[in-house]
Amino acid sequence: MNERNIRLLIAYDGTRYSGWQRQRDVPTIQGEIEDRISLMTGEHPSLHGAGRTDAGVHALGMVAHFHTRSTIPVQGFLGGLNSLLPRDIRILDAAEVAADFHSRFQAVAKTYRYDFFTGSVLPPCDRLYTAWIPCSFSLERMQSSLERIIGSHDFSSFEGKGSRDREQDSGRGAVRTLFRAECRPGDRENFWSFSFTGDGFLRHMVRNLVGTLIYVARGMFTEADFSRILAARDRTLAGPTAPACGLFLQEIFYPPVTREQLAGEKP
Amino acid sequence: MNERNIRLLIAYDGTRYSGWQRQRDVPTIQGEIEDRISLMTGEHPSLHGAGRTDAGVHALGMVAHFHTRSTIPVQGFLGGLNSLLPRDIRILDAAEVAADFHSRFQAVAKTYRYDFFTGSVLPPCDRLYTAWIPCSFSLERMQSSLERIIGSHDFSSFEGKGSRDREQDSGRGAVRTLFRAECRPGDRENFWSFSFTGDGFLRHMVRNLVGTLIYVARGMFTEADFSRILAARDRTLAGPTAPACGLFLQEIFYPPVTREQLAGEKP
Repeated sequence: MNERNIRLLIAYDGTRYSGWQRQRDVPTIQGEIEDRISLMTGEHPSLHGAGRTDAGVHALGMVAHFHTRSTIPVQGFLGGLNSLLPRDIRILDAAEVAADFHSRFQAVAKTYRYDFFTGSVLPPCDRLYTAWIPCSFSLERMQSSLERIIGSHDFSSFEGKGSRDREQDSGRGAVRTLFRAECRPGDRENFWSFSFTGDGFLRHMVRNLVGTLIYVARGMFTEADFSRILAARDRTLAGPTAPACGLFLQEIFYPPVTREQLAGEKP
Repeated sequence: MNERNIRLLIAYDGTRYSGWQRQRDVPTIQGEIEDRISLMTGEHPSLHGAGRTDAGVHALGMVAHFHTRSTIPVQGFLGGLNSLLPRDIRILDAAEVAADFHSRFQAVAKTYRYDFFTGSVLPPCDRLYTAWIPCSFSLERMQSSLERIIGSHDFSSFEGKGSRDREQDSGRGAVRTLFRAECRPGDRENFWSFSFTGDGFLRHMVRNLVGTLIYVARGMFTEADFSRILAARDRTLAGPTAPACGLFLQEIFYPPVTREQLAGEKP
């Protein structure tokens, strides 16, 4: 049997995991899924994700792929992995794809969502999936800062500590392009949701942007401050890193996709 | 100091609790809150809830009251209890009320919501608050059964086992009046939500109604079967008890409230 390339669409509740990437002695999403693929195939494939998520971050639509010589039908992977995996990790779809498909190298953009609550008492059934940031929040005060970050910028001021590896750098330094940056009210009072679509994201970039934008929305930074922070390329000037539990990796985009689609414009 | 009567509005994630009612050696909502009131006041008051919820059932708006001779301002109870309680139980509001206010005896109606998902793979971040009932679900097939149960009926066919205590009976036997019974699509595909408002609910009544109505919606019972089951006053004829995790006690109603409000009609 020739080697097959299997693409998985994955959702997970990141609450009890130390992030996507396999590590020794702690539960991770990649580790859990790789272990179940091994159980099914007797092989030890690497599961290549389109990106990484940090400890406590959730995913609605992670894409990953692995190679196998197994003859298990692709629908068998869908059902088999879901029956073997814990219920906080689910395979939403499985497909056999071209040998040269690569979930990370071919991804052209990603969307992250960030959900938060600004009221005084966070409803208990939302606490695992919504950051609690009690404050007087004004969407209006933040609007031009959100528009300011759309396009290509050096986002060093919003990059978390830790060395940027080759994968994250790929010759771009800290320059990333955002196609879309929005914040909308949720369906209940004091609930809000950011959405960012970009060609890549630095470590902690979404959470640092959110923490800083919320400082603008509550009046702790002016919009001029925000512009200066972005231009300064200095992490020490920006706001705090927003909590992991509000962050969702929502979607990974592959060609063909238009700039209008990435910007969230209706056709 | 005279005795004061304090009313609490409470929300909780029932996942890790053995229901509302205090029991020995297992965590319950009533037990957790009573213990924190004792810590604050040095007294051992009984916290009277407007009703009980079963193990695993959630609440968005439980109402309860307790008597105290403490001089703690009512806002102190709100902040103090929230700082002492685990994050899966939250006090949404605290108020000092008339000495004769009773959360259970004066309640005229309650609304329960039941959320479920009929698709093949339940998104992991919904698994704690949404029942997973994979099936081919038709709202239309169920519509007249939903309308059938509005009004006063003997709901014996939907009453869970276990003796009906005086509180639940109060001379009505198994007759209860539903002012509203609806099922609507959620904001995502394959998500659905029931809403029931009634003057009282028998043990497991909502979950047994939901389990049976879903049998109608998937074509396992006809609407004529449903009518016969309701008329038969025989629990053995009805469908299964739907899982606890989809059930939310949403609201308790006190006078003044109109029949139109209970029926969910817009003013």
